[in-house]
Amino acid sequence: MANKEKSIEKKPLKITETILRDAHQSLIATRMTTEQMLPIVDKMDQIGYHAVECWGGATFDASLRFLKEDPWERLRKLRDGFKNTKLQMLFRGQNILGYNHYADDVVEYFVQKSIANGIDIIRIFDCLNDLRNLETAVKAANKENGHAQIALSYTLGDAYTLDYWKDMAKRIEDMGAKSLCIKDMAGLLVPVKATELVQALKESVDIPIDLHTHYTSGVASMTYMKAVEAGCDIIDTAISPFAMGTSQPATEVMVEAFKGTPYDTGLDLDKLAEIADYFRPMREEALKTGLMNTKVLGVNIQTLRYQVPGGMLSNLVSQLKEMGQEDKYEQVLEEVPKVRKDFGEPPLVTPSSQIVGTQAVLNVVSGERYKMVTKESKKLLSGEFGQTVKPFDKEVQKKCIGDTKPITCRPADLIKPQLADIEKEMAQYKQQDEDVLSYALFPQVATEFFKYREAQQNKVDAAAADTESKAYPV
Amino acid sequence: MANKEKSIEKKPLKITETILRDAHQSLIATRMTTEQMLPIVDKMDQIGYHAVECWGGATFDASLRFLKEDPWERLRKLRDGFKNTKLQMLFRGQNILGYNHYADDVVEYFVQKSIANGIDIIRIFDCLNDLRNLETAVKAANKENGHAQIALSYTLGDAYTLDYWKDMAKRIEDMGAKSLCIKDMAGLLVPVKATELVQALKESVDIPIDLHTHYTSGVASMTYMKAVEAGCDIIDTAISPFAMGTSQPATEVMVEAFKGTPYDTGLDLDKLAEIADYFRPMREEALKTGLMNTKVLGVNIQTLRYQVPGGMLSNLVSQLKEMGQEDKYEQVLEEVPKVRKDFGEPPLVTPSSQIVGTQAVLNVVSGERYKMVTKESKKLLSGEFGQTVKPFDKEVQKKCIGDTKPITCRPADLIKPQLADIEKEMAQYKQQDEDVLSYALFPQVATEFFKYREAQQNKVDAAAADTESKAYPV
Ligand SMILES: [Co+2]
Ligand SMILES: [Co+2]
Repeated sequence: MANKEKSIEKKPLKITETILRDAHQSLIATRMTTEQMLPIVDKMDQIGYHAVECWGGATFDASLRFLKEDPWERLRKLRDGFKNTKLQMLFRGQNILGYNHYADDVVEYFVQKSIANGIDIIRIFDCLNDLRNLETAVKAANKENGHAQIALSYTLGDAYTLDYWKDMAKRIEDMGAKSLCIKDMAGLLVPVKATELVQALKESVDIPIDLHTHYTSGVASMTYMKAVEAGCDIIDTAISPFAMGTSQPATEVMVEAFKGTPYDTGLDLDKLAEIADYFRPMREEALKTGLMNTKVLGVNIQTLRYQVPGGMLSNLVSQLKEMGQEDKYEQVLEEVPKVRKDFGEPPLVTPSSQIVGTQAVLNVVSGERYKMVTKESKKLLSGEFGQTVKPFDKEVQKKCIGDTKPITCRPADLIKPQLADIEKEMAQYKQQDEDVLSYALFPQVATEFFKYREAQQNKVDAAAADTESKAYPV
Repeated sequence: MANKEKSIEKKPLKITETILRDAHQSLIATRMTTEQMLPIVDKMDQIGYHAVECWGGATFDASLRFLKEDPWERLRKLRDGFKNTKLQMLFRGQNILGYNHYADDVVEYFVQKSIANGIDIIRIFDCLNDLRNLETAVKAANKENGHAQIALSYTLGDAYTLDYWKDMAKRIEDMGAKSLCIKDMAGLLVPVKATELVQALKESVDIPIDLHTHYTSGVASMTYMKAVEAGCDIIDTAISPFAMGTSQPATEVMVEAFKGTPYDTGLDLDKLAEIADYFRPMREEALKTGLMNTKVLGVNIQTLRYQVPGGMLSNLVSQLKEMGQEDKYEQVLEEVPKVRKDFGEPPLVTPSSQIVGTQAVLNVVSGERYKMVTKESKKLLSGEFGQTVKPFDKEVQKKCIGDTKPITCRPADLIKPQLADIEKEMAQYKQQDEDVLSYALFPQVATEFFKYREAQQNKVDAAAADTESKAYPV
């Protein structure tokens, strides 16, 4: 027995905890405040996580817009508290944390400031898996001695063969990424495919492989199990009160599932239980107020049925409802994969999922394919988001963008440096270098936040100011 | 590739659907009515389930008590609807569907009538795994040409070695059971142990092995996956709107998880989706009214932490709270495994979990072990529930039951035939043979139901009768 145990090589699985970023982004619309995070940081720091994902993604926008918090201040406070644990952020390639392509100087500066303020690992991805859109961010991270992790947006389709993923992985390793993440936003990756995929990637590259998925379709924990057995090094999990549903598998559950196996994480369940105890009242409160909807907690099997993200399907339904054309749902469902093919078979993830979905609706409702074409469809077919895995359908492209000459270069090559102008534009609000970046990404939202901040600093109670203004109605 | 596929032997996994019994018993207090079930029966019948669990367990009691429904009538209606699918019930050995030991003639008659009214598979278990408590039911099922499945109550502890389970399985096969179920009521079985256990059982017996677990602790789907890979033939699942939490893994999810593997169930996801669509509004309604509590939907990691069922822990907390002794919780948690040892290390399942838990509370709160002893503890230590896996602690037994001579025979051997007396007692209410059995198990509840039924038949509106009685208050 002792012999048998010895003969199995130990290969402890690493855990990245998502409670401070993806878990609350997925379950409570990114509304967790810094104040809610800080009291538990010390205990989280003692767990021995591989990393804590705590910044980036939608948290930056949500902090400024809804919570009236400076995201940079949040990062510095988290860095202060986490003495032993690596902090991870999610970074949308050339889109940074926003929704457009930015100039390289903005991307470089953002990476530099993220690392300077405390980030260790930057997970960088592109919705089209166009690696050119990641180059600037990866180079910048390496220059700042950060850990650049490149994430592949996982999707299904003819183009996405094991050879495709292997080739991408090799190129990612060659680009200088220190690790590779399979980012399965929609929970499309089923267990048997996880085995194949991880095995293939392991053959292709030497850098560690991280799997990120969501429980949406219900297979996530099994997918993790199969991936880990196939050699996956790191999995992303969320402490149980904010786990499952549209979030990640529960940290404690995965820790227990691998206990006593060669992949034993070594994490202490009693300590994890204290962290769960801290977040449980937050879950209960969010359920009571409706901030957490019970619909996000169940299983949504549609993803596996139609191989498109659950969120995309509900968007289609509401678009059709608005038009009073709900009876066209089945037709639209059949149109979606056709439009996706015409558009070069991109992964169905924000924003490509919306672009493909809306165009499919228009193609069906208008009675003629591509009779009506959205601005975003034109942008995509003009190459402005980057290169898709397969070429666009030439006829469709012609019909949609006419004689406009599509670009084939890296989109950001056409964007002139932006930083200097931005800095000039927002100079009156600047209190720290990082404010320039907040403004660069969300000019309006950041301006409002800067004004709010100033009011606070001038000891003007915002509530009182409000009352005052109400006293002099125009 | 084709060759590789051929070389793997196909071994389709069988699915038992629990929506009509365990799923609603676990999530909405067994409140699903026959009327809610019937409209979907035809579609369910076309799926190709191994079986549909739809009767027994707590449904019998709940039908009579809360729904004012004749459980026998429900069974006949379900049998009418399910033309191609086997119907399965859960049967508590010598306790039948009640909470006491009954005489053999009652057990035999109940089995006979269950099969006569439409049951194909009777899953029979005993809370102590004392096989003598199953003998009568198994024999009766075989006599009626039913499928007797014996379920082992899964638990953890020194006594529960792989050799113990193998030996039990062998004895079960020898008893004439047509299949064996591992019944993991609390979600204690983790994936790695499922592999070991199923492999061991497969070495021991030739009859099919069914695994039944609950998602309570969050590992259930992974446990199923490992069990199936180790040779498990049948798993119990619930259609997604009533899956997970304290219920079973979702049917659709497990079907998808094994698709394209040697264990492919062959079930049609589109047809399953129609069934899910039918039950989804019921889930939403139950969440709205509070009949389904969001607490039963999350992960309860305490089971894996303390290796006792989650429900038992919350019982301990509320007992201590009532006594104003919440600070003794940790002490009681330490006392539980000690009492369990003293009591012969029984599985912690109703009623043994309550007996052990309450005694542990008394041992701590009274300041002296076994100074106060419950009636139920005395009964257990007198052998009245049957034989435990290990002997009782002699000193503890002496202190608790004094000079009372414990029984060592099968408890039902001491119970005289009951049927004739029962039939006499309830003759005035009898409208069908089966009424005798309803009365045998739940005399008071059945009597009330019989009166209600009579009132309905006499075209006396029960509501009007109520009003009448209120018109003449005493
Ligand atoms: Co995510
Ligand atoms: Co059960």
